[in-house]
Amino acid sequence: MSSGSPLLADLIEALRCLPGVGGKSAQRMAFHLLERERERGLKLADTLHEAMQRIGHCTRCRNFSEEPMCTICSNASRDRHLLCVVESPVDLAAIEQATGYRGQYFVLMGRLSPLDGLGPQELGLDLLSERLGEGEIEEMILATNPTVEGEATAHYLAQLARAAGIKPTRLAHGVPLGGELEYVDRGTLAHAFGSRLSVD
Amino acid sequence: MSSGSPLLADLIEALRCLPGVGGKSAQRMAFHLLERERERGLKLADTLHEAMQRIGHCTRCRNFSEEPMCTICSNASRDRHLLCVVESPVDLAAIEQATGYRGQYFVLMGRLSPLDGLGPQELGLDLLSERLGEGEIEEMILATNPTVEGEATAHYLAQLARAAGIKPTRLAHGVPLGGELEYVDRGTLAHAFGSRLSVD
Repeated sequence: MSSGSPLLADLIEALRCLPGVGGKSAQRMAFHLLERERERGLKLADTLHEAMQRIGHCTRCRNFSEEPMCTICSNASRDRHLLCVVESPVDLAAIEQATGYRGQYFVLMGRLSPLDGLGPQELGLDLLSERLGEGEIEEMILATNPTVEGEATAHYLAQLARAAGIKPTRLAHGVPLGGELEYVDRGTLAHAFGSRLSVD
Repeated sequence: MSSGSPLLADLIEALRCLPGVGGKSAQRMAFHLLERERERGLKLADTLHEAMQRIGHCTRCRNFSEEPMCTICSNASRDRHLLCVVESPVDLAAIEQATGYRGQYFVLMGRLSPLDGLGPQELGLDLLSERLGEGEIEEMILATNPTVEGEATAHYLAQLARAAGIKPTRLAHGVPLGGELEYVDRGTLAHAFGSRLSVD
């Protein structure tokens, strides 16, 4: 685009690295920041720079963290007998926002997927085994996604847990709250029907 | 959001300054950059920082520019007899992309709107008058938006042009190409009907 400013063209191009942002949105963002939000744009630039350079992984749970240990792992008030295993930091954030869970986490940063070269090594399962061996954990909550690969990963992790004498649990499957049966997919409905619970 | 990393929370908050980006999108962007696009994220941070600090306005046409004069004004191959007046740099970019226009521009950075405190002074009309007085310009294309305020601005500018002996022209109004008459708004259709052209 010829807009009279090569730097502006660079900015529009650079903004396209954001997910879901194409040429038109990037242009709109650039003009918006330049015309109305210089201060916040500068703040974003500095925070982004710092985040990209400083955020690594927690040495204990592999979650994103700018310190060697993340704020959840270093929080002494969290229950050390519960460990929730998730695929990615997004899942951890979702659980933190939605539930009252006060235990600890382990983030796989992926799922078992041999075809993509993701084996136990890449998921940090040696670190997880070490932690299971510490003897503090009593229950391991398998919160991997309910996909084929997520289920396979959960199955593998359940075996690890049992070998260490720890009870593995899995998130419940069923019809979502507020959903209508008519629109629930067949697999979910069949599963919910099969695992029906007695009403007290 | 408790995600184990205060810096990550800051990044998510900072990303919300982008137009159309709420909490959920900001979270998705932050995780995407951290997991997959560190290099491009860092590039974005640096370009953004530079753009926010260095991009000002061209001293001749008021368009965004990091130099005292933008690349369009300093391009000797552009026609100095044509001047296109637009409300904002976005409009300039749209005309550059869509048309083969090779003349020069003047960017008002707004439109006449006394209630918002935008008068001739704020739109840099003294700078525009000075330029009209240089005697090079033969035609002034009024490309303000076809809104009430845009039309009022065009009307005012047309008087300025005539006073300087310059021919003012305005973008044609009518039915958009590829549109169906059924869905064209009444005002546009009435205007297009009234200004019908003879078919040669």
